[in-house]
Amino acid sequence: MDFATLIGLILGTSVILMAMLTGSEASVFINIPGVMIVFGGTIASTLIKFSIRSCFLAFILALKKAFWQAGDKPADLIKLANELSNIVRKQSLIALENTEVKNPLFKKGVQLCVDGHKPAFIRNVLTKEMTQSIQRHEMSENVFRAMGDAAPAFGLIGTLVGLVQLLSNMQEPSSIGPAMAVALLTTLYGALFANLIALPIADKLKSRTDEERINKSLIIESVLGIQQGVNPQILDELLETYLPTNKRIHSGDANKSQQASEPKKI
Amino acid sequence: MDFATLIGLILGTSVILMAMLTGSEASVFINIPGVMIVFGGTIASTLIKFSIRSCFLAFILALKKAFWQAGDKPADLIKLANELSNIVRKQSLIALENTEVKNPLFKKGVQLCVDGHKPAFIRNVLTKEMTQSIQRHEMSENVFRAMGDAAPAFGLIGTLVGLVQLLSNMQEPSSIGPAMAVALLTTLYGALFANLIALPIADKLKSRTDEERINKSLIIESVLGIQQGVNPQILDELLETYLPTNKRIHSGDANKSQQASEPKKI
Amino acid sequence: MDFATLIGLILGTSVILMAMLTGSEASVFINIPGVMIVFGGTIASTLIKFSIRSCFLAFILALKKAFWQAGDKPADLIKLANELSNIVRKQSLIALENTEVKNPLFKKGVQLCVDGHKPAFIRNVLTKEMTQSIQRHEMSENVFRAMGDAAPAFGLIGTLVGLVQLLSNMQEPSSIGPAMAVALLTTLYGALFANLIALPIADKLKSRTDEERINKSLIIESVLGIQQGVNPQILDELLETYLPTNKRIHSGDANKSQQASEPKKI
Amino acid sequence: MDFATLIGLILGTSVILMAMLTGSEASVFINIPGVMIVFGGTIASTLIKFSIRSCFLAFILALKKAFWQAGDKPADLIKLANELSNIVRKQSLIALENTEVKNPLFKKGVQLCVDGHKPAFIRNVLTKEMTQSIQRHEMSENVFRAMGDAAPAFGLIGTLVGLVQLLSNMQEPSSIGPAMAVALLTTLYGALFANLIALPIADKLKSRTDEERINKSLIIESVLGIQQGVNPQILDELLETYLPTNKRIHSGDANKSQQASEPKKI
Amino acid sequence: MDFATLIGLILGTSVILMAMLTGSEASVFINIPGVMIVFGGTIASTLIKFSIRSCFLAFILALKKAFWQAGDKPADLIKLANELSNIVRKQSLIALENTEVKNPLFKKGVQLCVDGHKPAFIRNVLTKEMTQSIQRHEMSENVFRAMGDAAPAFGLIGTLVGLVQLLSNMQEPSSIGPAMAVALLTTLYGALFANLIALPIADKLKSRTDEERINKSLIIESVLGIQQGVNPQILDELLETYLPTNKRIHSGDANKSQQASEPKKI
Repeated sequence: MDFATLIGLILGTSVILMAMLTGSEASVFINIPGVMIVFGGTIASTLIKFSIRSCFLAFILALKKAFWQAGDKPADLIKLANELSNIVRKQSLIALENTEVKNPLFKKGVQLCVDGHKPAFIRNVLTKEMTQSIQRHEMSENVFRAMGDAAPAFGLIGTLVGLVQLLSNMQEPSSIGPAMAVALLTTLYGALFANLIALPIADKLKSRTDEERINKSLIIESVLGIQQGVNPQILDELLETYLPTNKRIHSGDANKSQQASEPKKI
Repeated sequence: MDFATLIGLILGTSVILMAMLTGSEASVFINIPGVMIVFGGTIASTLIKFSIRSCFLAFILALKKAFWQAGDKPADLIKLANELSNIVRKQSLIALENTEVKNPLFKKGVQLCVDGHKPAFIRNVLTKEMTQSIQRHEMSENVFRAMGDAAPAFGLIGTLVGLVQLLSNMQEPSSIGPAMAVALLTTLYGALFANLIALPIADKLKSRTDEERINKSLIIESVLGIQQGVNPQILDELLETYLPTNKRIHSGDANKSQQASEPKKI
Repeated sequence: MDFATLIGLILGTSVILMAMLTGSEASVFINIPGVMIVFGGTIASTLIKFSIRSCFLAFILALKKAFWQAGDKPADLIKLANELSNIVRKQSLIALENTEVKNPLFKKGVQLCVDGHKPAFIRNVLTKEMTQSIQRHEMSENVFRAMGDAAPAFGLIGTLVGLVQLLSNMQEPSSIGPAMAVALLTTLYGALFANLIALPIADKLKSRTDEERINKSLIIESVLGIQQGVNPQILDELLETYLPTNKRIHSGDANKSQQASEPKKI
Repeated sequence: MDFATLIGLILGTSVILMAMLTGSEASVFINIPGVMIVFGGTIASTLIKFSIRSCFLAFILALKKAFWQAGDKPADLIKLANELSNIVRKQSLIALENTEVKNPLFKKGVQLCVDGHKPAFIRNVLTKEMTQSIQRHEMSENVFRAMGDAAPAFGLIGTLVGLVQLLSNMQEPSSIGPAMAVALLTTLYGALFANLIALPIADKLKSRTDEERINKSLIIESVLGIQQGVNPQILDELLETYLPTNKRIHSGDANKSQQASEPKKI
Repeated sequence: MDFATLIGLILGTSVILMAMLTGSEASVFINIPGVMIVFGGTIASTLIKFSIRSCFLAFILALKKAFWQAGDKPADLIKLANELSNIVRKQSLIALENTEVKNPLFKKGVQLCVDGHKPAFIRNVLTKEMTQSIQRHEMSENVFRAMGDAAPAFGLIGTLVGLVQLLSNMQEPSSIGPAMAVALLTTLYGALFANLIALPIADKLKSRTDEERINKSLIIESVLGIQQGVNPQILDELLETYLPTNKRIHSGDANKSQQASEPKKI
């Protein structure tokens, strides 16, 4: 569970609701045609921009990635790489066949090693796997970013429609204020949906993709190191550069003493 | 037929029309000089930005690509590559001459193989073919994006023209409202055309181009693999990285069992 | 003559003029101090941004490139490359000395071949020639883009000056409307100049530069192919990738039949 | 202590406060619900965009990097490299074990040299260390930039909420002014927070990252030069290119005389 | 002296002043608290964004580079390269020691040649020298661009402060106009400072940097050519690609005749 996303959504919604209810009734902020213009328009433009399948996948992926903390921790992957590397040095590459690897990319890499493919081929397959997976994730981010761009535009369109109706038919001065309030509501809906939901989720997907890119680079380097029978200690030294300084387990004596005095170096 | 584009256009138009007709007559939203400023100005600036031929091609391409689902499916291309690869291994490279390949780039690649060109030359020709084709597609996207940038600007220009006329000649207070409504119409036209039509279609063309880039990369890799007589199973392993995990046909036993337990991995 | 630029300018100007003259006199839209703020300010900021020589060259280049269809057609260059390639194969590299080549870059390339320079040197000289020429073109584009960015800003400055004068001296309510109309005129001037002239011409120069980049890449490849005595047919095969599919002259039998059935493939 | 950040914050706050207090009471600018919308909304959207841990680290890092002048001076690093290089030439690579190096990356590099790793491995480890450290710094910059983007948006949302409340309930004309003032306050809060705090701190973190990138490149080059036993004078010559001309200690006679006549060459 | 910068500043200031003085007194446009908000705020945010030293250097560099035409002309550098190349071919590399070279980078390059360093080392040192120098120039550009971004934001903040004061205290209708005029003044100051001074100077520094990049690339290529004893005529041929076509001195007979017929080819 990614609590940040949940806390953010709850905090944002309650702050806005509180501001709305202080000083007026909630009904003032509800306008069904306005909701339809902003959401209908946003969905319409998103459908034209992407295929139905992309939009659908984007939502599934957003739910999975933005609300659940996906992926393995780099430290666990390094530990696993170290274990596998030890197996290869003590037994042989074939012995990896019986190990259990959960991460799909790591599993595929180990399988390719066991099958006896060449390093260049393995790097090629795993790198493409990573690139394609990242491209699919970026598509999901793009769908949400497109919605975040479209919503304020349709909010403005709704306000313009309301203003034109209001101005072309000004009979009673007392009705101008409320009519203008209604016209402004679509701009409010568009700004809220874009800035509280669509754009933040697109950015969350982006940081998830960045994390996965780091994880997958780490896995590819691990698999190639394991296949070439690199010394587990040297492999550790190399892989630990993927961790922030204060999370490193394995470090030389010289480093340890320095870490002790500056434990929170970031 | 790309239903997403069609559904999007119909949904967007009906939502906007519904909002316009709720509370006022349709005639309030019609202003011929405003339509002329926004569309005339947009077309004018697009003509200056590009050549007549580019604009014309952009429209043809947009109709073809945004409304019809173009291109082969990656899975079909991989299947074809596998078949051709089998033919080459069982018979010879020359035997490809009698095979029927529909995709033009694949056909050209196979022809170059049959003609006995070197891999480097084939890669060179096919990559340039891909690059040039993508550049022509991007030109089309650029035309629509330019229209999406110009339309709101000419909407603003129209509104400024209307405001200047209105302000320089304010005799009757009662006519100010309707005159302002008319002035705002051009801004509405510009925003609608940009956000419901021009920019979404530009983005659709962009995602089409991305799909074609993946397809064409897959084809180039297939052709080079086929020519070099790569083992069909290894070729499959390589090409399947272009597919999302849940669409893969061929996978090792180890992968299969894992796929079974996590079938919707994206 | 590039008719698109001319038609665009005429269409844009007439549409705007028509909208201005419908409903008010032309005099309403003329304000000399406003014209001076917008154009004086735009020219001033452009002079600070670039050198006098760059601004001058940008105008010359814009007139040449935006209004006249410059450059050779790729198809003609390919035909010429084929002829030269044939001469080299039938006679010798020295025989090129007597051929007449109009395109300056192609001429220089042929001269370098005749002079007996090495391929790496020729590629180096021609590529730099291309890069420098493109940089000079981009400078011209940048001048127009800078004008297109400055004009709306000085339009806003003019409107602010007008509003401050109007607000600080409101004696007669009836004069507020016309004074505000005059204040808005500079915004209108800025928007019109930017969106109808400066930005479109910058974009036209950009697409011209793209065309030249393709042409010059084609020439460099041709010259290097000619020097290395590449088979004219193979050279054709390579160079035709620079053309859209439906403009290709030379294609294998297999392709021809396919072209016949899908003649408008883009 | 980075005095620029402190002076900037104090100067900015006092100028704004002074302008607020000239002509009205401070209470006019205080509105608790407005503060809650802008800051609550900004924090909410930032939490959704990043993980809680990233947000927390971003604040720690911002306090450390934006207010304290972090990092070694390039000139000191060059001096250190020169000393170490001399030790290696006079004694041996192993003699470095007893030297005291404070900079963590330099220390790690020296340790890797002493451990007898190959240059390619050392470059690989140190470069990754640098890249990962810079990525963590960029994450911190991104958090502040995201806050600087969100704050004006929530300022606008607050103003829209206020305007809708005001317009839908206009009973007493005399209360419109003060209500509108309150509505505008959120826009003011958002603009102030973004332009005086969030965006400038993001930019400060960016220039810190740039300084660190230069320092770390210098260290990597030093370590590799030291390991390969490069002549200390040549190493100096190479490393001094990282310093501005007027800060260079070691330069040939020819340079010295030139420096004398143009001492402030930048 | 760079007359473009001076002419631009004078032209821009006089046009704006003229517009201000036509129709109102100058005093209307002077508001000390407004000036303090815009300039104080801009300086404050710039100090937070950069270090005091960077801001100081940026101003020195801007005065030097934006108002004085800095740097050697490419044609002079090519002439010098030709002379040095002749000396090396007629005498020896050591003979360069007695030549007088004013450009610091060229001088350093020649000195490195005389010192007998290897081409790869010389390229490495000179390229880094160029990169570091360009980075320092870009820092200066960034300071001015940051000021150009901050000024309109603080202009808006000033206007919001003014509007809140005005709206929260509307007693006398006749004072609303002048108070609003004063509020708008900060927006005007911000827009003027950004668009007439800060952004144009940032762009001028950018084009200066581009010129220096070309000059320094030319020098590096010259030095390496001279060291390798390249034929002066071939060196010329290579270096002249850095000049626009119509400024070239040395060109083959074939080119000359072509130049004669198309003398203004750009």
